[in-house]
This record gives sequence, structure tokens and C-alpha cells, in this order.
Amino acid sequence: MKFISNDTIIAPATAHGSAAIAVIRLSGEQVFDLAEQFFYTKRLHKKTLKNKASHTVHFGLLVNKGVIIDEVLITVFKAPHSYTGQNSLEISCHGSPYIQQQILQLFLNAGARMAEQGEFTLRAFLNGKFDLSQAEAVADLIASNSSVSHQMAMQQMRGGFSNKIKTLREQLINFASLIELELDFSEEDVEFANRDELKKLIASINQVIQKLINSFELGNVIKNGIPVTIVGKPNAGKSTLLNVLLEDDKAIVSDIPGTTRDTIEDEITIDGVLFRFIDTAGLRTTSDIIEQMGVNKALDVMKKSAVVMYLFDAHTFGSGDLKKEIELLKEHIGNAQLVIVANKIDTETGSSLQQEFSDFPDIVYISAKEQKNISGLKQKLVSLYDLRAIEASDTIVTNARHAAALRNAAKALENVNTGLQNNVASDFLALDIRYALEELGNITGEVTSDNLLENIFSKFCIGK
Amino acid sequence: MKFISNDTIIAPATAHGSAAIAVIRLSGEQVFDLAEQFFYTKRLHKKTLKNKASHTVHFGLLVNKGVIIDEVLITVFKAPHSYTGQNSLEISCHGSPYIQQQILQLFLNAGARMAEQGEFTLRAFLNGKFDLSQAEAVADLIASNSSVSHQMAMQQMRGGFSNKIKTLREQLINFASLIELELDFSEEDVEFANRDELKKLIASINQVIQKLINSFELGNVIKNGIPVTIVGKPNAGKSTLLNVLLEDDKAIVSDIPGTTRDTIEDEITIDGVLFRFIDTAGLRTTSDIIEQMGVNKALDVMKKSAVVMYLFDAHTFGSGDLKKEIELLKEHIGNAQLVIVANKIDTETGSSLQQEFSDFPDIVYISAKEQKNISGLKQKLVSLYDLRAIEASDTIVTNARHAAALRNAAKALENVNTGLQNNVASDFLALDIRYALEELGNITGEVTSDNLLENIFSKFCIGK
Repeated sequence: MKFISNDTIIAPATAHGSAAIAVIRLSGEQVFDLAEQFFYTKRLHKKTLKNKASHTVHFGLLVNKGVIIDEVLITVFKAPHSYTGQNSLEISCHGSPYIQQQILQLFLNAGARMAEQGEFTLRAFLNGKFDLSQAEAVADLIASNSSVSHQMAMQQMRGGFSNKIKTLREQLINFASLIELELDFSEEDVEFANRDELKKLIASINQVIQKLINSFELGNVIKNGIPVTIVGKPNAGKSTLLNVLLEDDKAIVSDIPGTTRDTIEDEITIDGVLFRFIDTAGLRTTSDIIEQMGVNKALDVMKKSAVVMYLFDAHTFGSGDLKKEIELLKEHIGNAQLVIVANKIDTETGSSLQQEFSDFPDIVYISAKEQKNISGLKQKLVSLYDLRAIEASDTIVTNARHAAALRNAAKALENVNTGLQNNVASDFLALDIRYALEELGNITGEVTSDNLLENIFSKFCIGK
Repeated sequence: MKFISNDTIIAPATAHGSAAIAVIRLSGEQVFDLAEQFFYTKRLHKKTLKNKASHTVHFGLLVNKGVIIDEVLITVFKAPHSYTGQNSLEISCHGSPYIQQQILQLFLNAGARMAEQGEFTLRAFLNGKFDLSQAEAVADLIASNSSVSHQMAMQQMRGGFSNKIKTLREQLINFASLIELELDFSEEDVEFANRDELKKLIASINQVIQKLINSFELGNVIKNGIPVTIVGKPNAGKSTLLNVLLEDDKAIVSDIPGTTRDTIEDEITIDGVLFRFIDTAGLRTTSDIIEQMGVNKALDVMKKSAVVMYLFDAHTFGSGDLKKEIELLKEHIGNAQLVIVANKIDTETGSSLQQEFSDFPDIVYISAKEQKNISGLKQKLVSLYDLRAIEASDTIVTNARHAAALRNAAKALENVNTGLQNNVASDFLALDIRYALEELGNITGEVTSDNLLENIFSKFCIGK
């Protein structure tokens, strides 16, 4: 991947497939000259682009050696007022894969080259349009599939997370410069940096970093969906319940034509939170997961879950049975949250059941078959993740790279702390502070290496 | 489907799936007012749209009740300078299906409604942006998958076919008005329309119509791909040849990221002509199609083919064997064109084989396994359809509706002809001429019924 370049890159920017329109994106210093060669009016007179104002749209024909490829709309973006910061064009053509291929081929033959994954965003980063963490958020935004993951990516793209990291760095840089100053006078044994204040600062920075690191587990779960397992004896109604939960959600989604999420199965979004039912196909055939607890596969499924939903038939189960089952279950679910669900309730037995199971006040009573209180169960699930508070103000780390950098920074600061307690020489302190600064700088891209950039932008889709 | 309306319609215009960007299209008189409610600057100040010039692009945020849905680019198209002829907007958002759904929902809640299939193009037609045949070409253009089908759709969209039909109608209308005039003076036994000239005109119009009707078979074949069957004895190398033909083509296509045609199998495009290998899966298991000629399925496959490729192993076959096989084959291939292919050639035997099979000078000599002369075979296939001539000037009918209308018009004109020969009264002539005019008018939409429109536009994709 070339890092600084002005050559013209091209890529389809919209999803592949037949549709009303498709957009092809180009960026590079010479892009207007390149496109003008092929751009004509309806009556086949040449049309210019470079004398057009930025952010204007122009109708015309793309013509290759006398053959009309398509009637298109070309949008002109002039540097620096474009996504990449360079001169850019967006060609809106008829949404035929064949036509898109023809247009790509036309420009590739004329000297443009296919953009690598994320190369448009990389150019935007290199031109200072946004920092690294914001650039990464663009990829997250495109992949977002629930209101919470969407809001987190949006906040990050708009710089919320970056600002937090910048503040931390600035505080640290002030002290670092004092420590570095001491190095210049190292033979004179002066202390420009007040050690007590440094200790306090390190402690407070570390607290913030720790909070961010802790948020990663939650952030990751939100980004990828909260893994839920439904377990219970055969005939407890596991499949019925899962189908009711899924169908309900699918019905809402498929109301809007063109947005059917046909590749997504066994996932539901409740109040903007994505729940993912892991390995449910396997669970459906495992007739009794508790009895087979010794089986590794079943244990693995449990371990991967953030929530284990225990479902039982309220008519065939007594309080004693339930107690035994739950005790057995708790030995195996690790840190997962347990939701106990009584199935097959009907109106007559409602209150007597609550008496029977009064030792378990948190039980959710439903009838999967008759779709009773499914909303209550959903509320229970979503209440386990108190996300309204998060959405409003807290910064959640969703990116594994950021979490790793934060962990490294925390470790380095811990070393500074230990160093301070043992009165080590300032050059050792400076080394660790520099390392912490570098790790924090890695997050926003204030400190970057080519390897890091390549690693990040290769995860993007083509055309972004 | 409402036919004349100014309400705001909305639909995703780009293909479904995750991508760099997606475009959502809106059209309707009030579309700017509607969108302004949700459109903000980066610092969350309201942004206007209706005071903006047409064909300009505006960056901003879509915000719903304080929650940012996305950073978007909105393009303003003012009536009548838009695709539909109405005020229109295109919202270019991040290409997440979730975000698209949120934006759709936002506008649906605010009073827009989901566009029906083809409704944008229907509005364009109703606002006189183009005629019916051109509108239909838009759908063909989107579906075009080869250079020829693409050029035919493009020619039709740009009005080539429409002009031809209009010319025919105008000639006919001149005479029709004279005939109709006779009706007003029916008691006076006058003839304003010269019968001999009318006969000549009918003949010349019918000739053009007949040519168009004849072009439909070819047009249909080009649009949907030319059906080819490979037949031959077991071990002649049918599968190998097919794979070589297909792989070669797939490799070219997959050079361009994002354009992999993963749903298309057993199709190749040679010099812009699409060849479709019909029911080849079945053929692969049918060990010897000639010996099983009695089997209905095999005969059906033959009947559907435009080209039958007969493949034989040049080493195990003599001239006599070949003659017998070809004679048998010719009884069954109907109108299909026969291509005889000698497989498994090698350099030593090349010239001696040509001597052996000198009775069949058209044989194509190849080695499927060693990929020898595959290009020669491809040239042979494409030479069967001399398309360069077609592309340049001829009008090809590709639409079954148009072909049916042309047939009806031809029939009506035939009735006029018969009537003229039998000296029937002018009111009968007028009736048939009117009918012919109506059928021709149906093609371009000069004469339309709501049913016809509904039928045509429901075949479009959403967002067009």
C-alpha cells in the first residue's frame, strides 16, 4: 500500500448487485482531467468537469471510443472539500454490474488503479480529515447492526473517544516534558517534575484508562451481539421460544422492502441491543443439555454465553426440581447471567405458579406457544444491559486494537508508578512515560507506523 | 398504484448489503420541507434545502429527536430537472443496512411512503421525461449483462426504437384521418384516401413491422443469452471443455474486485455476446446423449438450444463414424446451428486429422485439456451471431410486450389490406387502422391504460 500518493484510485462504493443505481468513486489530483476524456453531453459534445464548482452534479454520457457506456450523474468534489481531501468524483450510473464493470475498466485502462481496501479513508486520514480512531469508526459504522453499536460508532467517528485519549495524552505530555528536561540536567540532580503530583496524575490517568479497558468487554459484546444460550429439559419449549423471538423480530425488519436481512439468523435486536443466539442449531438437537453437562461441546456453548436462559415447563416442574436444576446449572455457567423462564403458563395457573416458585422471584412467566409475555422476557433480557446510561455520555471501547493499546499504556504507567515509589532515575521514568504516550498516540494515529496503517485499513471494504 | 401524485416516495436506490455508501432516493413536491426537519450542520444547527440550487450536494447530519442517525450528503434536484421531473433528493449515507433502515423509517414516520417497484420511473414517464419504451429500456439496462444487451437497451433508452415506431404511426395517422373524414361524409360516397396509395403504405409499413417482429427472436436470444448445448460420446471431453470455457471467463471477471458474478454459472461472454449453457448439469450426467436420443429430456435440451456443439475425440473417431453421428444428430437439432469440434488434438496429428475429416471443413480442432485453440472455438461461436452489424444501425426488438403489440398491429393492417381488396366500407377500414395505431401507440405509451402501466412498472426494481 502506497501511503502518500496523488494518483487516481477508483472503486465501486455501493453494494454489489443489480439495483436502480450504483456509485463509483474516484480520488486523485488528476481525476477531472481523466474523466473529461469520456464525458459528453446528450448530443455528444465534450463536457468539462474541472471548471465546475465543488459539490455540483452534472448529467452526461460516458462514452468510450464512440460507444455510449451509460447516462450518468457525476458529482464534483474539489480538494480539500472531499471525503479524501483530494479532488474526487462520484459517478452515479445505472445499477447494472455489467455497466459498473465497463466504467471501472474504462478508467483502469486510462490510468486509474483499483483502490485497495480502505484506501479512500486512508487518504482522508493522511490528509488530516480525521484521526485513526475516527477512521476506524467509519468501518464500524458501516458494520453497525443495532442502535447501540451504531451510536457507539457514530460517537467515535465524531471524535468523542479521540478527545478523551487526547486529554489523557496532553496531561501526560506536560509531565513528560518536565521529566525530559531533567534528563538534560541529569548531572545536576534537579527535579523539575514534582514527584507527588506525578504520582497523583498517574493514578488519575490510570483510573480513566482502567475504566476504558473495562468498557471493552461490554463494548465488544454490544458490537458483536450479546451471546445468549437457551437451555432446558426436552419439551421445555426451547425451539418454540426461539422461533417466537426470531419471527417477531424478522417480521418488523421485513416490513421495509430492500432491507431484509436474509443472511442473519438467530439474532434479534431488542431496544437497539443485539442478542445473538449461539450455536442454537446444535442446542436444538441436544435433547437435554443439563444431563449432558459432561459433554464438552455443551460446556463450551455455555462458556461463550453472556446470558444463559433456563427454560422449564411450569406444569411438570416443582420448586424442588427447579432448585436442583439451577444449582447444577450455576456450577457451569461461569460469569454468564442467568435468566429463569417458566414456560407453558395459562391464565388459571398464573398466580399459583408464582406461589410455588416464590424462592425465585426473578422468574419470567411466559407461554411461548401462545406468545404470552414475550415482551416481558425481552424487557428482562435488555435490562441486563443498562445501555441508556452508556449511550448518553460514557465512552465505550469497541476496538480490540484500542483495548490492547490501553492495556499497554496502563502497564507502562504502572511501571512509572513503581519507579516513582523506588525513586528510580528520571531517564527510566521518561522511557516508560514515552512508551505510554506512544501507545495512547497509536489509538488516534498521532504516533503511527506504516505497518499499523496497513493493518487497520486492510480491514475496510473496497470503495471506502 | 396511484398514477398521478405528488406525495413523497422513498426507496433505497443502491443494492442491498454492506458497502462504503448507500443511496436513498426521495421524490415529491414537498420533499425539501420533509427532509429539512431532520437535516443539521455538524454543530447541530438546522440546515435548509429548498433554497439550494438544483444539482448541488450538501453535507450534514440526519438527526432524529437529538439522536444522530448518520453523516450524509444530500443532493438536491429541483423540478423539472430531476429523474422523475419532480423535486427530488438523493441521500448518500454510510452503507450499513441498519443505517439505511433507520433513514427509511425516519422518513416513513414523517409522512413519506415506500415507493412501489418502478414508481420513480413511472413518475418520469407521467411527467414526460421519456416514453414507455424508453422507460422499459431502463429496466433492461439495469439487467444488461453483455455488451450487446447493454447497447440494445441503451439505444432503446435513448429513443432509437421509439423514433422508428413514431414514424410508422405518423404515416398511418395521416391516412387514418382521411379515412375518418370519409366517415363524416359517409352518405356522400366520397373517397378522400387514395386506395392504391393506402395499399402501398400498408405494404411498406407491414414490411418494417415484420422486420421488427423477426428481430425479436434474435433480440430475445441476445438479451437472455444464446443457449448452447454440448453433446458427444462419453469421454469426448464435454465437462473439461465446459470448465475450460467457464473458468477462462470467470478469471477475467474476477480480476475486478466487487464485480464477481458469483450467482452466474455456466454462462460466458465472448466479444460482448452472452452464451448460456443450458441444463449442463444434466448433460454432464447423461453419458451419451446421442444414444439416448429417444429420451425426451435430451430432446428437450436440444430443442431449447440455438447452438448444438458436437464434441468428439479425434483419436478414436474416423471420418465414417463422424458422418453417421452427424446425420443422426441433424435429425434432432431442428433450427439450432451445429458446431463440430474435434477434441484431444496434439501437434503431431494436427494436419493428418484435417485430411481424415476433409469432408467437414468447418470442424474446429481443439484440445480442451491442454487449452489449445479455445480462442478459435470462441471465435467460431461468436461468428454465428454477426452482431457488429446489428449494433451499428438495426433496431432489435427485445421486449415481449413490444413484439406482441407489433404482431397485433401487423394483423390489423392485414385486415385493412384484405378490406381494401374487397372494397369494404371505410368505417371497417377505420376500425382496423385505429386498432393498429393503438397497438403501436401502446409501445411508446402514446396510448396507455392503467393496467398496462401497472403491468410494466411492477417489473422494475425498488428505487427505480
